[in-house]
Amino acid sequence: MAQDVVIAGVGTTDFSKNSKRSEHQLAVEAIVACLDDAGIGASEIDGMITFTMDETSEVDIRRELGCESLHHFSRVPFGGGGGCATVGHAAMAIRAGVAHSVVVYRALNTASRVRFGSGQLTPPPESGDQRWFTNFGLATPAARVGITARRYLETYGLDDDAYAPFALTARAYAVTNPAAYYYNRPLSRDEYLSSPWISRPLRRFDCCQESDGAVALLVTTAERARDLRKKSAKILASAQNAGLEQIGLAQYWCEDILKLPEVSGLKEQLRKQCGMAPRDADAAMLYDHFTPLVALQLEQLGFCQDGEATEFAARGHLGVDGSMPMNTHGGHLGEAYLHGMTHIGEALRQLRGEAVNQVSDVSAVFVASAASTPGSALMLGQL
Amino acid sequence: MAQDVVIAGVGTTDFSKNSKRSEHQLAVEAIVACLDDAGIGASEIDGMITFTMDETSEVDIRRELGCESLHHFSRVPFGGGGGCATVGHAAMAIRAGVAHSVVVYRALNTASRVRFGSGQLTPPPESGDQRWFTNFGLATPAARVGITARRYLETYGLDDDAYAPFALTARAYAVTNPAAYYYNRPLSRDEYLSSPWISRPLRRFDCCQESDGAVALLVTTAERARDLRKKSAKILASAQNAGLEQIGLAQYWCEDILKLPEVSGLKEQLRKQCGMAPRDADAAMLYDHFTPLVALQLEQLGFCQDGEATEFAARGHLGVDGSMPMNTHGGHLGEAYLHGMTHIGEALRQLRGEAVNQVSDVSAVFVASAASTPGSALMLGQL
Repeated sequence: MAQDVVIAGVGTTDFSKNSKRSEHQLAVEAIVACLDDAGIGASEIDGMITFTMDETSEVDIRRELGCESLHHFSRVPFGGGGGCATVGHAAMAIRAGVAHSVVVYRALNTASRVRFGSGQLTPPPESGDQRWFTNFGLATPAARVGITARRYLETYGLDDDAYAPFALTARAYAVTNPAAYYYNRPLSRDEYLSSPWISRPLRRFDCCQESDGAVALLVTTAERARDLRKKSAKILASAQNAGLEQIGLAQYWCEDILKLPEVSGLKEQLRKQCGMAPRDADAAMLYDHFTPLVALQLEQLGFCQDGEATEFAARGHLGVDGSMPMNTHGGHLGEAYLHGMTHIGEALRQLRGEAVNQVSDVSAVFVASAASTPGSALMLGQL
Repeated sequence: MAQDVVIAGVGTTDFSKNSKRSEHQLAVEAIVACLDDAGIGASEIDGMITFTMDETSEVDIRRELGCESLHHFSRVPFGGGGGCATVGHAAMAIRAGVAHSVVVYRALNTASRVRFGSGQLTPPPESGDQRWFTNFGLATPAARVGITARRYLETYGLDDDAYAPFALTARAYAVTNPAAYYYNRPLSRDEYLSSPWISRPLRRFDCCQESDGAVALLVTTAERARDLRKKSAKILASAQNAGLEQIGLAQYWCEDILKLPEVSGLKEQLRKQCGMAPRDADAAMLYDHFTPLVALQLEQLGFCQDGEATEFAARGHLGVDGSMPMNTHGGHLGEAYLHGMTHIGEALRQLRGEAVNQVSDVSAVFVASAASTPGSALMLGQL
């Protein structure tokens, strides 16, 4: 990679179950906070990237911010799989010289407006993944993942409570994070075990939250970043990938449903770009939409062997003093669900040394967006 | 720009008013035709870019084609303004090394399914351009452009028939293009003048068609292109831009509604990248959604002086032997409306010397996607 490109700022709104503001307003608030975090003026922003699912307009946001020019705008498809790709695509635009400072963002009222978990059995569209599973009554993401989650337990001879360590670890991080929805609200193992089944073996706390809020990140050149307010995170590698038999959260037609070929592919691409494997990082931010998919990611990314992820988590490896601290902000389970963008912000905070649950001596952080859907990943390091 | 990147193939379906196939099928047909045109196998395709408005799924298309890997996927917002940007973004991904051969495409049943011209006065969403004009009863694109079209005539003291040369020139090209909807169906000046008002001063033939069909283009490295079947078009420059007071087709809040700041900005960016102005090209493919916006583009891009575009067209400058042959395939008015993607394909054909209305000695072609909305542009040349 030619020119060094960095993430130089992060801004968020509050995370709630009812923001009482439009997604447009949330996006603008997060971007203003992000620019303030970096110490850069809106007039310098000349690119914007968000998700195809985001319902805001770059032009409307730019009008409010007062950006003088807008020379790059694109969007990433496949929901949460777009998280890291927004940053990766911004880096491409900057390296290509068409933009200098790009804001990437996601604004989402999924608690109060579009409830992703509410289920959908409407007639499938003429094309798209839905026709592969709605026909079988799998209306919700949890229903689809439940099947994979059950197979995992059966294959490795695990009990129904095997996923508990992921939920408990995420909550423990959230409890000490003032930005988290579950701040100061600990979760006991008994509470976890008595929480309702959503789609057995998935309990309530195995499923990510639905949240209202927004996150924005500033991507710019390393050169510009040197004059900014805070430390930046260098983009060491950035990848995007779709599996060959990719069907969102319902990969029953893969050769082995306990593999995530799209995630293994991301690992290989990152290695080619920067020579590092995910386990070479000092912390990992994995996409925790559902705890069983965190287990599969840990295995596919090489953090542990196949079938050992739940034990890996139970032994404390994911804690702040563990061998691979993971989702130290509380993740989607404990902090808020913003399509993986909070995870990238947390990676920046860890590299800056300003995380609420700070890992010691962080020189690189691995971030993944989504799993069991087309996704993306980043390896971030010290500038 | 570092590595040379090219457009190496173009494929289309038939263009009709009722394709009787899904957009998914149209997209696959166009891509298969495109790969055949280039002489490349689907297994080599590792990136796909389309429009946010496109309703197909990259993953579904890839499954049918049999691409082995998919390492870049993104989409461009703002409808037809995304045309040239799909190619520009593909070039960025290729130069960044994340993809090697990217298919960009657009599939659209806008004649038989989504009729863009049918008007919409539904309650405006919480954000987005609509609230700036639907409140005033401007339900259709033609209604919005009609206001600008009237101001243009008044400002320069022109008659209601001033836009005729654009419609007649486009039709003359289409008449000799077997792919065009209006192939072999000439349009006389009398027929033009007796066609119904859509939104005065816009007559029926001042407005683009609604079409069913699909277009695909292959973007790859110059190195790979040397082994392919036909000549490629080198991407000399690629730009994307949004105006400061950009409100799609309703820029009444600009300093001067007869300027197109987003288009002037594209011109400046291209000049910075390759040192060429649009008028340095040997042919131009401009976005002909409405004839008055073609007039404004010709002026803003420097092909003629302000207020002189209709006279410029009337004198034959846009004909195949004129000083700046324009939309030699017939454009949206005469061939088909596919969000500007046909224009890029025609630029490739002109550079190859295989256009049905071939301009002599073409060494560079300028292409613009959209006007009066956030848009994009390309300067293409001989490899």
